[in-house]
Amino acid sequence: MSQSSDQRLGRSSVKLGRDVYISSSASVVGKKEGEGPLGLLFDMVGEDDLFGCNTWEEAESNLQKDAVYLALGKAKLKPEDVSFIFAGDLLGQSIATSFGISSYNIPLLGVYGACSTCGESLALGAMSIAGGYADKVVCVTSSHFASAEKEFRFPLEYGNQRPLSATWTVTGSGAFVLSSENADNKARARITGVTVGKIVDYGLKDSMNMGACMAPAAASTLEQHFSDWSSQPEDYDKIITGDLGTVGQTVLIDLLREKGYDISAVHMDCGIEIFDAQSQDTHAGGSGCGCSAVTLSAYILKQLEEGHWKKVLFMPTGALLSKTSFNEGQSVPGIAHAVVLEKIG
Amino acid sequence: MSQSSDQRLGRSSVKLGRDVYISSSASVVGKKEGEGPLGLLFDMVGEDDLFGCNTWEEAESNLQKDAVYLALGKAKLKPEDVSFIFAGDLLGQSIATSFGISSYNIPLLGVYGACSTCGESLALGAMSIAGGYADKVVCVTSSHFASAEKEFRFPLEYGNQRPLSATWTVTGSGAFVLSSENADNKARARITGVTVGKIVDYGLKDSMNMGACMAPAAASTLEQHFSDWSSQPEDYDKIITGDLGTVGQTVLIDLLREKGYDISAVHMDCGIEIFDAQSQDTHAGGSGCGCSAVTLSAYILKQLEEGHWKKVLFMPTGALLSKTSFNEGQSVPGIAHAVVLEKIG
Repeated sequence: MSQSSDQRLGRSSVKLGRDVYISSSASVVGKKEGEGPLGLLFDMVGEDDLFGCNTWEEAESNLQKDAVYLALGKAKLKPEDVSFIFAGDLLGQSIATSFGISSYNIPLLGVYGACSTCGESLALGAMSIAGGYADKVVCVTSSHFASAEKEFRFPLEYGNQRPLSATWTVTGSGAFVLSSENADNKARARITGVTVGKIVDYGLKDSMNMGACMAPAAASTLEQHFSDWSSQPEDYDKIITGDLGTVGQTVLIDLLREKGYDISAVHMDCGIEIFDAQSQDTHAGGSGCGCSAVTLSAYILKQLEEGHWKKVLFMPTGALLSKTSFNEGQSVPGIAHAVVLEKIG
Repeated sequence: MSQSSDQRLGRSSVKLGRDVYISSSASVVGKKEGEGPLGLLFDMVGEDDLFGCNTWEEAESNLQKDAVYLALGKAKLKPEDVSFIFAGDLLGQSIATSFGISSYNIPLLGVYGACSTCGESLALGAMSIAGGYADKVVCVTSSHFASAEKEFRFPLEYGNQRPLSATWTVTGSGAFVLSSENADNKARARITGVTVGKIVDYGLKDSMNMGACMAPAAASTLEQHFSDWSSQPEDYDKIITGDLGTVGQTVLIDLLREKGYDISAVHMDCGIEIFDAQSQDTHAGGSGCGCSAVTLSAYILKQLEEGHWKKVLFMPTGALLSKTSFNEGQSVPGIAHAVVLEKIG
């Protein structure tokens, strides 16, 4: 037990009273992601996207299992050293999580924020450590191209055409060990703050243009963050969204310009980085819970470790639709949760 | 900001360093629940289960919206007074939540633990207040008989037979305002501790016998709770599970007897209380995220307020299946999260 001096900040933010360290992390991805621009940085690349399983859902569960295994190993921890695991995915009733992590026997707090789930899990994980409730927690999220297409759009066998505004769900899982201590001075980065997002619904209904659906939520969380922290875009080396893709990026930059913030010089989107849209035919970019998670583990934390960046805002974005809500003619609301990541030292 | 003296306790528990108050709560239910033994205690009973909407999913969203509205009103709060809302439901991608609470514009932390979600939301909500991250949060969960049957089993139009081990998903939503203060001395109860559950999978595959699927998880969390808190069944006036029903209750009592704990004298199950199984033809009992939530709001908190009980353990139970995992032949793992509730003063 230790005293914390955590602070509420403005409407929606928390400034952690003590640093929370990302002790280790791991990324496991599919073949296509392995062939992309970040391919060499991932810890493990599957040879085929079934990962030796019989179903896409089992394959996605295996991604989570492997990512947690690798992250724990890198931190030299056993599952019983971990107090809680914050985990989630995109599938109905989060079954990739339920069947992926159960063998670790770690007390589970299941989270859901669509593709923003990685941000939500890191936010709650960091709060639980800074609050003195845990010394170590694991945060893990995943997505899988084939299970997601089946869950949200069409089975792959149908062979539907994809408009240019569509994104390509990343097959991958990223796991993070958060700790109250910088053990052996080997932590990758620290989490210093959190901004929790609200649901924002502009009434868009196109599940093949998720970037445009989520951009207003990203703009809302970002504007709130700047206000809560009295900060400006130039205070960050990068402001990183999860999976807006090229269409959503344009909308986000425009929306924030209307609010008086120009993020064009510092904005980066994991969905744009993870694939080479031209040669990989992924259209507007990558998406999914796994997209931001594996990019954070493989690329963003590396930049912070190597000192190329000192402080970034990591803000995964989620589209809160289901097949049922879409079929019933509902809109696609968005949400975005942000965490402040800083270089150690 | 205030200093907390929260403590980790044993493997999976948190003893809150300061009391967290349930300032107010509200329950909104369907017609059948209104006709049950607790019928007169609910705040609002719908005349028909569509609640004026066009779809079952919209109806469930409306349940959440109304429950939050009533709970905020009773606490004399506006949505902008609340820091975070912890919310979830049983539908794929939690759409009852996404379309139910968005108009409140409260920063959302989406949670998923199947029918244990009410327990998870109260646990995280209480931790966020005791940790100094928020003064007030709302926790809300829901379920709806028709949307759940469609989501997990068969559309109602199919008219399938239900075995006697099946439970009847409660149409209802319970909302709770948690606060760091006992405003006007009107708080209903206080939350003093939390035990977070693990996934427990005994390999059962019968989605028409969820009580048996979840009972091992309830036994696991309860055994862990007794160990973490060095407590015994007789330390509680009631130990209350969410929706084990009559079949699951028997299994739970037996499993714990094997571990040396006899809870038969103090055990109560919300699913058994909410319906009169004989006259209402609900078979093993009620179930769903809404079952434990509305029973807590309408009945359990009333018993604590009136001093009939001083201390109870409230432990909703969840079955972590989806239609897809069931159809693919997977088992039905369970999870249970517990919160300690005590009388004020």
